[in-house]
Parts: sequence; structure tokens; C-alpha cells
Amino acid sequence: MVNVFVAGVGMTRIGRRAEPLSDLMAEAAHAALADARCERPDSVVVAVMNPEEFLGEGNFASHVATAMGLSDVPALRVETATSSGAAAFYAGFLEIAAGVHDTVLVVGGEKMTHLATPKVSELIGRSIDPYERAYGATMPALAGLVTRAVLARGGMGIREMAQVAVKNHANGARNPYAHFRAPVTLEDVLESRMVADPLRLLHCCPISDGAAALVLTRARAAVRVAGLGQGTDTLALRHRRDLTSFVATRAAARAAFAMAGFGPERVGVAELHDAFAPFELISLEDAGLVEPGKAGRVTLDGDTALDGRLPVNPSGGLKARGHPLAATGLAQLVECAWQLTGRATGRQVDARVALAQSIGGLATNNWVILLEAA
Amino acid sequence: MVNVFVAGVGMTRIGRRAEPLSDLMAEAAHAALADARCERPDSVVVAVMNPEEFLGEGNFASHVATAMGLSDVPALRVETATSSGAAAFYAGFLEIAAGVHDTVLVVGGEKMTHLATPKVSELIGRSIDPYERAYGATMPALAGLVTRAVLARGGMGIREMAQVAVKNHANGARNPYAHFRAPVTLEDVLESRMVADPLRLLHCCPISDGAAALVLTRARAAVRVAGLGQGTDTLALRHRRDLTSFVATRAAARAAFAMAGFGPERVGVAELHDAFAPFELISLEDAGLVEPGKAGRVTLDGDTALDGRLPVNPSGGLKARGHPLAATGLAQLVECAWQLTGRATGRQVDARVALAQSIGGLATNNWVILLEAA
Repeated sequence: MVNVFVAGVGMTRIGRRAEPLSDLMAEAAHAALADARCERPDSVVVAVMNPEEFLGEGNFASHVATAMGLSDVPALRVETATSSGAAAFYAGFLEIAAGVHDTVLVVGGEKMTHLATPKVSELIGRSIDPYERAYGATMPALAGLVTRAVLARGGMGIREMAQVAVKNHANGARNPYAHFRAPVTLEDVLESRMVADPLRLLHCCPISDGAAALVLTRARAAVRVAGLGQGTDTLALRHRRDLTSFVATRAAARAAFAMAGFGPERVGVAELHDAFAPFELISLEDAGLVEPGKAGRVTLDGDTALDGRLPVNPSGGLKARGHPLAATGLAQLVECAWQLTGRATGRQVDARVALAQSIGGLATNNWVILLEAA
Repeated sequence: MVNVFVAGVGMTRIGRRAEPLSDLMAEAAHAALADARCERPDSVVVAVMNPEEFLGEGNFASHVATAMGLSDVPALRVETATSSGAAAFYAGFLEIAAGVHDTVLVVGGEKMTHLATPKVSELIGRSIDPYERAYGATMPALAGLVTRAVLARGGMGIREMAQVAVKNHANGARNPYAHFRAPVTLEDVLESRMVADPLRLLHCCPISDGAAALVLTRARAAVRVAGLGQGTDTLALRHRRDLTSFVATRAAARAAFAMAGFGPERVGVAELHDAFAPFELISLEDAGLVEPGKAGRVTLDGDTALDGRLPVNPSGGLKARGHPLAATGLAQLVECAWQLTGRATGRQVDARVALAQSIGGLATNNWVILLEAA
């Protein structure tokens, strides 16, 4: 297979943003194009989860391409719920690997903070199985259910989960692009208000606006796509055998490592989908980065801290960098590329291989992508 | 580049359908899988334009994959407004051409007839530039504007446009999958009620439900993908130099013929995007199938009729087969595959190469795909 490289990356500051989404996406895209020294890509892949309902706009690939001044460049949109950014990266990768294009701009973004939180929750809830939704299930409610199952299984407790939030806020404090720049303590997390028992407010990621972009090329650049994989699962949680592990992450990791030709032991830094703090622990194990049952322990021991053996979410993760849905999978990869090229000022770790894991819906459509210093 | 083949096709009857969209898409998908003698594809690409607002459902790739009994098969959604089906075909093509998958199911569908027509019009209108939409522009209104420009340019009149509808209804009457099975006369068209001056009701395609699917393979099959191309244009009509020709179709055709290594003279049958009857005439010229200025004449002369030199829309086109948005680009390709393999019972033409052209939005994101008897 043809090698595909990351030649440039860019993103906006994540948070409450007043600008239109197309401006945020153009900002990220032009930063990535400038970083890649590219004026005009051969194609654009756009990730956005639900611009129709968040913004009242459709045909968003053309919308964004026009806003970026690239209306004559082929553009299409890819969507897999909250992992849409990773899916768009995959589509861009395919365009180069298939030999159709040489330089592809992948850009993802979402804007939600202008809506009331219950409305955002309702719209994100469209990702849930309709039958389960009919009983009032929301994303945090289902995440609470998963967390209960994990607690019942044992091996990690509410304290380990809180430590994920403490670590990621500490990292976010060092990231100028992060939504939250203030550290929190274990006590802050454990005393924050209950959202979906046993998950408290500080176990959960915020609602964020923002955008992120990468330029992929056939021409050699400093970062190579070593492997990528997708995994899926039933829409309904009640149709799953086990709630304490995500089949979709396990399948995605298997496919990504198979393509890369190496195993998890080579991974030096990871960006994991901690939309809810326990998801970072589940994902650590599902991606094969930590032995089953050990994610809680290694987190408390500091192994996944910035100065640990395997830094996880140096960007602050969804928890502190923020979670602008379709931007997130790409923001993870931007952070990975910065880490691999020594540009993660203030939070730089030492790694040659980076892993990004993105969860779509309630783990129905997950991705694992491996980047390597070329 | 790796050869990609169409190993199986299937679709539902188009029209007013009572079933849930996921059932329609599963029906089309399983028909295509059976036709390809495939039990389990390596991946699924889903085309759907706006299930969030038409149906209140998101995460639709996982939704459909689960409904089809393929929840463990990687699935993603592709969207380029009304040309989403063609865009999904492209993504499936890439997965095989890149060497990532060997067998890909591409399935598209839409369900709208349960909503009131003004609501459907509003939702489809999200594809229009926001500024132009703010002045009340709808798709038919903008199509009327384009038609006025074409009439002012000369070379085709309202009678030629009406003949497109007469021809396509005659073809639809021979297609058991078509929304409309009744022929219409020139007088019927010219006396039907005005929708967007000068476009009358019978110049316009209906609002339809339905689904279509194809199975793409690396393994040799009876139909080969000879070429495909995408073309784009500004979201806003007011930013275009000319309204009488679609830059996006011209660019798509150029790319598709370049990949195929042959020209329009090899095309023996075409499925064109006649959402509004004049669009078939514009598209005939933009795709290079007819000399500029001649599309009206050849249509009146019967060249594009079922027994003509170059049959166009033997399925009935969007006008009579119907236009279930994201299904349409794939329904065109299903018809092309049937024509190339002698299975278009009752409307069979003699062709070795078929061209499908799909328009996204008001010609912001168009595709041309060439299939060839292998």
C-alpha cells in the first residue's frame, strides 16, 4: 500500500466560540495548509456531525469549501457520529492510498454552545438506539450505566475515574488550545454535582465549539500514517454481551495494529476518547495499551501522566481540551502530530509512535489511528 | 490503479413507502448482496442526506448496519446533499482501490413522504446558500431562475423541456421500480400547474421514498467501474459566471473520462439528474454527450428516447422513477448495471458503456460515474 503522510496540522482554540462554524473550520484548515506549505489541496474531506440541527445548514461540504475559498476543489462530508473526524481522516487516507489524489485537506468542526444544554443533549441523543431513547436514555445516562457495570466488575473505582479528570485538567492547563485551563483536584471531582449516577460533572467532558484540520500527502513528510482501523457494534446497548469493554475499540485497534505491522508496545503517547472519565480507562485496556483490569491502577500510579511511562491525553483530552464532536477525532491527531514533531510546547513528551482512539455514538463506530515519526 | 467491479445491485420500488427507512435500505442492500452472492461484505458505506431532520435519527451508518444484521461490519456515512449516493459509491470505490477492503456494500436511501411538502422543501433548502435562502429561495425557485437564463440564452425552449418529461414518463411506465408508471403528453406537461415560473409541476421530480444498493468487489464481475469524477462550484448562485451550464458537471465529466481513458463517444446509455426537466438538457451538454446548444433539438428528434441513438434516463429518471435524494445516485447506477447486463426488462437498450451523472445541491457537488460491461 502507498505510504500516506501528515504534512501539516492546525486547529482553533476549543471552547465557547462566537464565530460561525465555517469560519472556525476555515481557520483550522488554513493553519494546516500553511503548516504544509500547500496553497490548494486536490480535495477536501469535511467532518461535521449535525450542522442541519445545530446550525440549520446542510450541504456542508460545499458550504465549508466555499467559505474557505476552495469552491472549485472536490469536497465531501463523512459522518460517524462523534467519531466523524477520524472517519474523515480515513476517507482522506483512502483518496491518497487509492492514487486518486496527492494532497487532501481533512477538516472537522462543530458548534453547539449557542444552544441550550438540554437541546444539545437531545440532538446528540439521536445517536442512541430509538427504543432505548424512548425510555429517556441520554448519552450521560448510558455512560452512567456503563460505569456502574465497570464498578460492579471491579478493578477500577470512582477514585481512579476521578484521577483521569485530575490528570487531564492538569494537561489541559498546559495547552493553549484547551477549553479548560484550570487544574482540578480529586476532591473537586468527587464533590462536583451528580450528572448520571455515579458520574459527576467533572467526570464528563464539556460542550465545546471548535475545529481541527490535517493535510495528508503522498509526498514524504515528518509524520507517517502507520495504520488505521475501524470497529463497530450494535446500536443498542441491550444487544451487547458486555458493557465493561467496547468491542468496537478492540476491533479498530486490531485492524490498526495489523496494518502497522507492530503492536501496542511501540506506542509512546495516546489520545483517548474520554468523553466520560471511565471511558479513558476502558479504552486503555481495549486498545491493548494496558493489561485488562490494570487501567485504574496504572492511572493512580501516574503511568499515564505527562511524565509517566505512557502519557495519555497530553492535550487534556475531551475532558479538558474539549469535545467539539466532529472536530475531536482530528484534534486528537493534531496533538499526536505535534507530539511526534516536538511542537507540543509546555506538554511535550518523548514518543515515536502515537495512538488516537475515537468513539462514535455509545461506542457503535470507533476508530484507532497510529501515527509514526517518519 | 486496481480495477473495481460491480458484482451485485438491488433497489426498492420508489414511491410513497410506509416502511421505516432502515427497512427500505436493508431491502435494497440484501437484494444487492444476494445478486453478488455475498453474505457478508468487508465494509458498508451509507448514503443518506438528512435523517436527523427527516426522521429524528442520527448515527445512521450504525443505525442501518444494525438494522441489516451487519453491526460488526465497519460502516460509515457519506453526504454531499442530493448527490450523496454517488459520493458513497466513490468512497466504496476508494476502499477497494486503496486495498483496504475487497467487498464493499454501498447503500443509499431517503424517506420524506411522511412530512408535509413545505417542510420537505424547507429541509432540502438547507443546501442553498444562507444569504440567498434568506430571500426566500427554494430549490424549485432557483431551478426556475436557471431555466429563465437557459431560455434567454436560446437553443432550447419550454417545449423541449416538456419533451424530457414526456420521454421520462414513457420510460418510467416500463420500469416496475418507478414512482410514476403513467405516461404523460406534452399538453399534460404544458398545462400542469405552475410551480416556479417557467417550471410547471410536470417539469419537476416528485418527493419519493426508497433505497438502492450496489456491491463493489476487487474480484472480477460483469460490470467494471471505468471512471469517476467529482466537480464542485460555489454554494451561492450569484457567485457564478453563468447559470446555463454547471461547472461542477463539466469538471466531474472531465475527471471521469480522464480516468476511463476514453471520451463521451463511447457512452451508449446515460442516467442524468433531471430533478427539473431542463437539467437533463443542461447535463447532456455539460457531460459532453451532446454538442453545446443541441440538447433541445436532439431531445425533440427522439435521439435520447429508448429507441434513439443515445437513450437517456431509461429508468424514467428522477422525473418518473423518483428522487429519494441519497438513493438517487445509486439508483442511477443500479439501472446502468442492469442495462449493461441485459437485465432491464421492458426497457433494455444496447450499450457497453453507461454514464451516470448526479447533482448535489444546486449543482455545487456533482459526480459523473462511468460503468462498462467487463
